[in-house]
Amino acid sequence: MAGNIFGQVFRVTTWGESHGKALGAVVDGCPPGLLLSESDIQRDLDRRRPREAPSSTPRREPDKVEILSGTFEGKTTGTPISLAIYNKDVKSESYDSIKDVFRPGHGDFTYQEKYGIRDYRGGGRASGRETAARVAAGAIARKLLEREKIMVRAYTLELAGVRAEKVDLNVIDENPFFAPDLNAADKMHKRIVEIKEDGDSAGGIVEVVVQGCPAGLGEPVFDKLDAELAKAVMSIGAVKAVEIGVGLAAARLLGSECNDEITPEGFVTNRSGGILAGISNGDEIVVRAAVKPISSIEKEQRTVDSNMKPTTISVRGRHDVSAVPRIVPVCEAMVSLVIVDHLLRQRAIKQP
Amino acid sequence: MAGNIFGQVFRVTTWGESHGKALGAVVDGCPPGLLLSESDIQRDLDRRRPREAPSSTPRREPDKVEILSGTFEGKTTGTPISLAIYNKDVKSESYDSIKDVFRPGHGDFTYQEKYGIRDYRGGGRASGRETAARVAAGAIARKLLEREKIMVRAYTLELAGVRAEKVDLNVIDENPFFAPDLNAADKMHKRIVEIKEDGDSAGGIVEVVVQGCPAGLGEPVFDKLDAELAKAVMSIGAVKAVEIGVGLAAARLLGSECNDEITPEGFVTNRSGGILAGISNGDEIVVRAAVKPISSIEKEQRTVDSNMKPTTISVRGRHDVSAVPRIVPVCEAMVSLVIVDHLLRQRAIKQP
Amino acid sequence: MAGNIFGQVFRVTTWGESHGKALGAVVDGCPPGLLLSESDIQRDLDRRRPREAPSSTPRREPDKVEILSGTFEGKTTGTPISLAIYNKDVKSESYDSIKDVFRPGHGDFTYQEKYGIRDYRGGGRASGRETAARVAAGAIARKLLEREKIMVRAYTLELAGVRAEKVDLNVIDENPFFAPDLNAADKMHKRIVEIKEDGDSAGGIVEVVVQGCPAGLGEPVFDKLDAELAKAVMSIGAVKAVEIGVGLAAARLLGSECNDEITPEGFVTNRSGGILAGISNGDEIVVRAAVKPISSIEKEQRTVDSNMKPTTISVRGRHDVSAVPRIVPVCEAMVSLVIVDHLLRQRAIKQP
Amino acid sequence: MAGNIFGQVFRVTTWGESHGKALGAVVDGCPPGLLLSESDIQRDLDRRRPREAPSSTPRREPDKVEILSGTFEGKTTGTPISLAIYNKDVKSESYDSIKDVFRPGHGDFTYQEKYGIRDYRGGGRASGRETAARVAAGAIARKLLEREKIMVRAYTLELAGVRAEKVDLNVIDENPFFAPDLNAADKMHKRIVEIKEDGDSAGGIVEVVVQGCPAGLGEPVFDKLDAELAKAVMSIGAVKAVEIGVGLAAARLLGSECNDEITPEGFVTNRSGGILAGISNGDEIVVRAAVKPISSIEKEQRTVDSNMKPTTISVRGRHDVSAVPRIVPVCEAMVSLVIVDHLLRQRAIKQP
Repeated sequence: MAGNIFGQVFRVTTWGESHGKALGAVVDGCPPGLLLSESDIQRDLDRRRPREAPSSTPRREPDKVEILSGTFEGKTTGTPISLAIYNKDVKSESYDSIKDVFRPGHGDFTYQEKYGIRDYRGGGRASGRETAARVAAGAIARKLLEREKIMVRAYTLELAGVRAEKVDLNVIDENPFFAPDLNAADKMHKRIVEIKEDGDSAGGIVEVVVQGCPAGLGEPVFDKLDAELAKAVMSIGAVKAVEIGVGLAAARLLGSECNDEITPEGFVTNRSGGILAGISNGDEIVVRAAVKPISSIEKEQRTVDSNMKPTTISVRGRHDVSAVPRIVPVCEAMVSLVIVDHLLRQRAIKQP
Repeated sequence: MAGNIFGQVFRVTTWGESHGKALGAVVDGCPPGLLLSESDIQRDLDRRRPREAPSSTPRREPDKVEILSGTFEGKTTGTPISLAIYNKDVKSESYDSIKDVFRPGHGDFTYQEKYGIRDYRGGGRASGRETAARVAAGAIARKLLEREKIMVRAYTLELAGVRAEKVDLNVIDENPFFAPDLNAADKMHKRIVEIKEDGDSAGGIVEVVVQGCPAGLGEPVFDKLDAELAKAVMSIGAVKAVEIGVGLAAARLLGSECNDEITPEGFVTNRSGGILAGISNGDEIVVRAAVKPISSIEKEQRTVDSNMKPTTISVRGRHDVSAVPRIVPVCEAMVSLVIVDHLLRQRAIKQP
Repeated sequence: MAGNIFGQVFRVTTWGESHGKALGAVVDGCPPGLLLSESDIQRDLDRRRPREAPSSTPRREPDKVEILSGTFEGKTTGTPISLAIYNKDVKSESYDSIKDVFRPGHGDFTYQEKYGIRDYRGGGRASGRETAARVAAGAIARKLLEREKIMVRAYTLELAGVRAEKVDLNVIDENPFFAPDLNAADKMHKRIVEIKEDGDSAGGIVEVVVQGCPAGLGEPVFDKLDAELAKAVMSIGAVKAVEIGVGLAAARLLGSECNDEITPEGFVTNRSGGILAGISNGDEIVVRAAVKPISSIEKEQRTVDSNMKPTTISVRGRHDVSAVPRIVPVCEAMVSLVIVDHLLRQRAIKQP
Repeated sequence: MAGNIFGQVFRVTTWGESHGKALGAVVDGCPPGLLLSESDIQRDLDRRRPREAPSSTPRREPDKVEILSGTFEGKTTGTPISLAIYNKDVKSESYDSIKDVFRPGHGDFTYQEKYGIRDYRGGGRASGRETAARVAAGAIARKLLEREKIMVRAYTLELAGVRAEKVDLNVIDENPFFAPDLNAADKMHKRIVEIKEDGDSAGGIVEVVVQGCPAGLGEPVFDKLDAELAKAVMSIGAVKAVEIGVGLAAARLLGSECNDEITPEGFVTNRSGGILAGISNGDEIVVRAAVKPISSIEKEQRTVDSNMKPTTISVRGRHDVSAVPRIVPVCEAMVSLVIVDHLLRQRAIKQP
């Protein structure tokens, strides 16, 4: 109900604020017998940490995860897996300046309206830092998917107007933007530096592909696989659009251009993005998320204070220039959570 | 779990197949004391029925709704409201030809893979006809929202490549495409006729606006209002992309171009689409859905039969040329269900 | 949330009032491929109908069930199964006398307090008639359990102070009280006649046994199998206590008297009632429900009217003298729903 | 699904094993603005700790709770409240002896059957220690209820065959058994000492009363208030029966003896236990739980090892002679969780 729980069978609850003591996740419903150690989770958390890129915040959290329950002798036991990440590099005082001002593009105003109280330090629960818990939980989902030979990969298809011209999954981890095209990564770097100097911020597009997903996952009518993916990805703070397969372009295609013909060897094309009538068709699943630019910018903007008096703001805290690279592992995590949940849901109704 | 239930407080279960005895919905969680008659629901169902447009199927269902429970002396009682719509104009035999063939773009193949059995008549549960139940349930949500002075309106922003050049809510019901621009509606008509003659089909874009929604609705983290809207809209059969506010365009804007500045009079712009950090900000909520062209086309396409032998198909059944106009009231219904659910969810945590 | 939905994987929504048009259930999550016809369900509904016993109401509903969706060519398809039972023998006018009076022991007062409105005809949604929908849905669960060789049987262990002295499952259907002891059934008959003549009503105890349930069902911590059974059975209108295994007697046993010792041949005793730490242990599951006497009695009782003015009431409508016999199939249904739900839940986490 | 989450609006997830690093709870859905400090929770946790009674285990955990998220400047913010209790007094080696033996009455066998793996140290997740997390979460529920002037109190009505002869809420905290009758407490002490010397264990009955609960809480049909209470209380490890109001005795009463007559001053009696048709009637809510004796006894019992070979066991670990006193605060917690959840559920549908 309060929205911090995700999934039906593989169910994740996250908690924690940007500048609180800690943040974490509880995974309820992970099948027993899965090999799992803290290093499995740490690997994904490290990918989410700010990289040595000009797009990154200078806040440096070690993001060290602890498994507090749910494993025994290196394996999951079927009981809840509790994960905690203690906050270390917290400088709350630097946020006193925004205590009484609503930052444009942020949740300051809406949290105040909703709850009548808000933890303003670093955005509190609305901070992107919340996604660390998602990535930690997602890492467990990925371990399960690996066992089923299902691979979830995300990358920066476009950043600050620079689009990757090819997709080479092998180079994603070789550049700080998770771009699948090193040439594009260079251009992204230059463009981000310019924008940063200008006191502004940039958006982009993250693409996620799922390889090896069996046909049959997804539950009509409301819990279609694409509907669940749309929710999962749109629930990431800065995302403003979600596409499946050809996505928005479908609106301008003819039926004969949009359908994927079928041959005994499989689907001839993959405009559907691997999902038909809400159910995976065995082809590669393709999801894209459009990410808005970071709302915290140095450029002066008009806003109001908590008494609704006009004022201006120029945000100089420790923040990224673009959230896109950091959202890449978060997208992987969210998509993994959806796929693993539906994999287990499908098992429940399958005659053994 | 099986995905036919939607919402948390205002909870809708739908059931029924295209060519079964009936289809319907059960609304559990509607507050008591709401004036409700069958005509309130019929009004919305009638808007979903195929219109005298060249984009429409010749199947003519009266779609007469019956309220079987949950009201007493013209008011809701707080108990489940059961709605049934009996199928009348059913010609199952005309579907025998597709009994053993997987139609491209449809769920035939994926249903077979998922369940090992499928009701092939008219697409069974995967038929667009399923959305009649959503519209019926949505009509109850709309009645509740009206009481709160919240209005949900959808229209065809674009059809077959023809885009509305203005948005005039008053003319939506004056043309068979639900276009907010009569001039565009004329062009849509011409283009649809051409495509129909060509044995092809067309997609488009539906836009939904919510006026009068109070600030504070939506539940961080996973059940953000935009995430829930994305799921709701993406769960409609043919939708391939969902946008909130500026949507996909956000990816190419700078922070200074994307943020909505705030003044004591309110937000200066509405690029956010009325939602900040997953919570409504009191501004107009704007959602767009990209709809793919109808998969059933007369043009011959390659496919396989249920033995995975190659064959071809040319679909001549009773179907629309474009699903877009009929999806308009479905979008209204789904968005209404999300808004009313979050309205009630917010009440639960508000100190009275 | 509004409480008319039961189960997680095998999920049942019921709807309908005593004197409305119809009542029914939607089963969402039934696995595909199950042979299912209306007669499978009718058989259980017929067992719930009032029998030619002095404990029974003279209202005679045919309780004819219709399957409106979810099956195709005699098998379930994995989509929602909608069941409807139309009310026929409705005499609403006879309830005008209780329109403005709160009957002691009934939900009249509490429904009014909760909803501010109530359908007073025959108790509305609070009527025992609501359980017809449970029995219909439970019949589908039983079909699934039969396929797994799991048998759920209930019987009247005690009625109006007369206790069965032996349990012979073969004679349950041979007497109108569902007693497992024909000798006791005779005594029950005599006692019920006396109580009826006295204008009073009687309670009793229903016992349910589950045979063939595999070990491993039930989810610690909160969804223990016994906890779920307790909820399921206590949710039946007149039930005031639920026991598992030795039940209440456990409070007065020593550990050495209460534990079930284990040998390679199995558990030596079954004081646990087949459940240890909330998980089935492979032994027979034993649940008992204490049923209060029917609240509608001819004996005059003090009460208040809707203006809270004192009055008296003597209920002469068409009602049973004891609900116990009719609760027997309802208990079977509710226990079946719990077991089948946990069977499917367990499949979701089992490595295939 | 995996059963470690409780509640709909006020939703609690617990995690942790007896001998793991820590255990805890996440409360999702607590309304904002509630004054809350660690000491509020500690107070209840301290009541759950083993007391200086002969019935108690010698394991001495400080059970110090930490609030890791969800509060700001001493108030709840509406975001998830994460609670952690680190285990300190862990002696895992002493459990090596039971590593390969299934203890009668415990979940060793059923966990093994369910998951194929188990954390045998101190019972792992099946340990009574798990209830510390429930008590911690329940303390937050109690704070909320106090604000509404609703009081939940539990006490030991009967222990080892000794029954309290009066109920004086003021003396409950003055004796180590939480008995509401100091005279009975003395007798309980003597009886427990005898049983302990005999190497055996004892059960008893806990009674819970809720004072000040408004009429109107509870959701027909399946989520009746009594059904939810039954599940809540039966989900506590050792509970084998749950009664509401007159409970089991209802089976032997006549209608005229069981109904509560109504006068303008209120209900004349409270046989219903404050709940009619699943909805609170404004009277005192009365719930009783029958608790079985502790399964760990020194008396030798037959059992099998993990290879299903016969063996015997005499459990000498650190355990209580009776769980009853420690279950008292757990019952309070579980009942509080149910009441607060339904209080918030009711708000969602109330016209403001």
